[in-house]
Amino acid sequence: MGKKKKSGTKKAPESTTPFSDALRADPGTELAGIAPRSTPAFGGDKSDGREALDDLVAAVSDLQERLFAESVAGGTRSILLVVQGMDTSGKGGIMRHVVGAVDPQGVDITSFKAPTAEEQKHPFLWRIRKALPTAGQIGVFDRSHYEDVLVVRVHDLVPRAQWARRYGQINTFEESVADQDTTIIKVLLHISKEEQEERLAERLERPEKHWKFTPGDIDEREYWDDYAQAYQAVIDKTSTDVAPWYVVPADRKWYARLAVMTLLKEHLEALDPQWPEASFDVEQQQERLKDS
Amino acid sequence: MGKKKKSGTKKAPESTTPFSDALRADPGTELAGIAPRSTPAFGGDKSDGREALDDLVAAVSDLQERLFAESVAGGTRSILLVVQGMDTSGKGGIMRHVVGAVDPQGVDITSFKAPTAEEQKHPFLWRIRKALPTAGQIGVFDRSHYEDVLVVRVHDLVPRAQWARRYGQINTFEESVADQDTTIIKVLLHISKEEQEERLAERLERPEKHWKFTPGDIDEREYWDDYAQAYQAVIDKTSTDVAPWYVVPADRKWYARLAVMTLLKEHLEALDPQWPEASFDVEQQQERLKDS
Repeated sequence: MGKKKKSGTKKAPESTTPFSDALRADPGTELAGIAPRSTPAFGGDKSDGREALDDLVAAVSDLQERLFAESVAGGTRSILLVVQGMDTSGKGGIMRHVVGAVDPQGVDITSFKAPTAEEQKHPFLWRIRKALPTAGQIGVFDRSHYEDVLVVRVHDLVPRAQWARRYGQINTFEESVADQDTTIIKVLLHISKEEQEERLAERLERPEKHWKFTPGDIDEREYWDDYAQAYQAVIDKTSTDVAPWYVVPADRKWYARLAVMTLLKEHLEALDPQWPEASFDVEQQQERLKDS
Repeated sequence: MGKKKKSGTKKAPESTTPFSDALRADPGTELAGIAPRSTPAFGGDKSDGREALDDLVAAVSDLQERLFAESVAGGTRSILLVVQGMDTSGKGGIMRHVVGAVDPQGVDITSFKAPTAEEQKHPFLWRIRKALPTAGQIGVFDRSHYEDVLVVRVHDLVPRAQWARRYGQINTFEESVADQDTTIIKVLLHISKEEQEERLAERLERPEKHWKFTPGDIDEREYWDDYAQAYQAVIDKTSTDVAPWYVVPADRKWYARLAVMTLLKEHLEALDPQWPEASFDVEQQQERLKDS
């Protein structure tokens, strides 16, 4: 116990390495060197992982409620969880099984699709700012402003000079968000091209999954290496002290869910939100209640 | 089986009455005649009720996903669940244990507090319209436009002539919402004054619940009868064919949660959403995927 491992790709039986340490990707961390089927900081198998996830729900729920309660008493802190990843990397599963385990009153999910006509008239961060969490909330971005340096870069949707400036704009923006007492957790769900093929094949096999598929999903696979390069640039240019990236190996869905839930828990624990003190005389109110 | 009971207040062992029938309150239904500890359309006890709630989750989740999938393929239908009730009637528990059991990506909760300065500059339905569910979503209102004929009426926050006009405005509004393919389910969580006292006492006893209490909660108890009258007026004037009220006895939290989940299920079943047909040639895409 207490032994720290720095490896981000090996199993660590009975590891006590925080996931935040094991998964943190600083500028220079090579995405290509992280195995998508690895389970950093966790030594168990799928059934252990599911059990561990269930075990986390009560603790995370308690911490979330404290964060919310703190805000009712005037606290200003919040969390922003940014979830990025290729198609089929499991973003929906994170929303359902991780975010969905927390009281929905304390959570605010925004799904960013291709920008609407109105959104396109504004700078790329306009719609992002509008979706930031308010005090006490856990804001969750399913895709985010990073699409503006991912799909936009890969397909040259704006001139290179324009997207190239965005990394710096993102860092300035995230710094201002962190200054407003928002803890930023950026998660990259890291899957392999082979795993994506299997998941797309499953969507094609099962009629109740057809709606999740479009032929364009296959077209995008041609650009796999370009996306890898664009993600590497994101890590290199936007993993900062106030808003670091965590690369979550995601070929095993159970691990990715456990990892994101644990990241949430570790960041909430660091905030250590406390139940607010009563702003009234409890005994006096108990007397009043009896007479009411 | 198949036997229908009309009683809204008695236990019905092995009842097969739809909750929608048992709980529906039409104009003239006397709120005072509905026992807050009753469990209409359900013959079991607390542990049966919890089990029944757990059993509903899979079915409701499946129906919700179909509704969502339908919208991805161009469907326009949605659901709006309006939850009203006195302080401590269990609105938060409904959000957490009923709404929270559904995929958060398909749900959009709006909590209506006292209107902000900006909201007060607009007609009372302005903020409500902005929060209506988009296609495929289950929108949930924790409090709603009904506050504008409840707390506003009880405390004369606007002149009588103004709030008196609102019932008709609400009906017109809800008709237009229903015309946009939104199924409206309005739930009144019906608790007794005694049960509220117990719940407030619990909030005072437990330090981690103090943040949920304000001395004003006790002041409001003086107006209990005025609120009862205001709720009766709501039932009488706004329980319409397109947007009926369901009165859910709520002194037993487990029953209220089961009832709201069942109402959601029954309304989703009536919509009967179907998985969309594939808009592409499945075998052709399977071939393309193999080559990608």
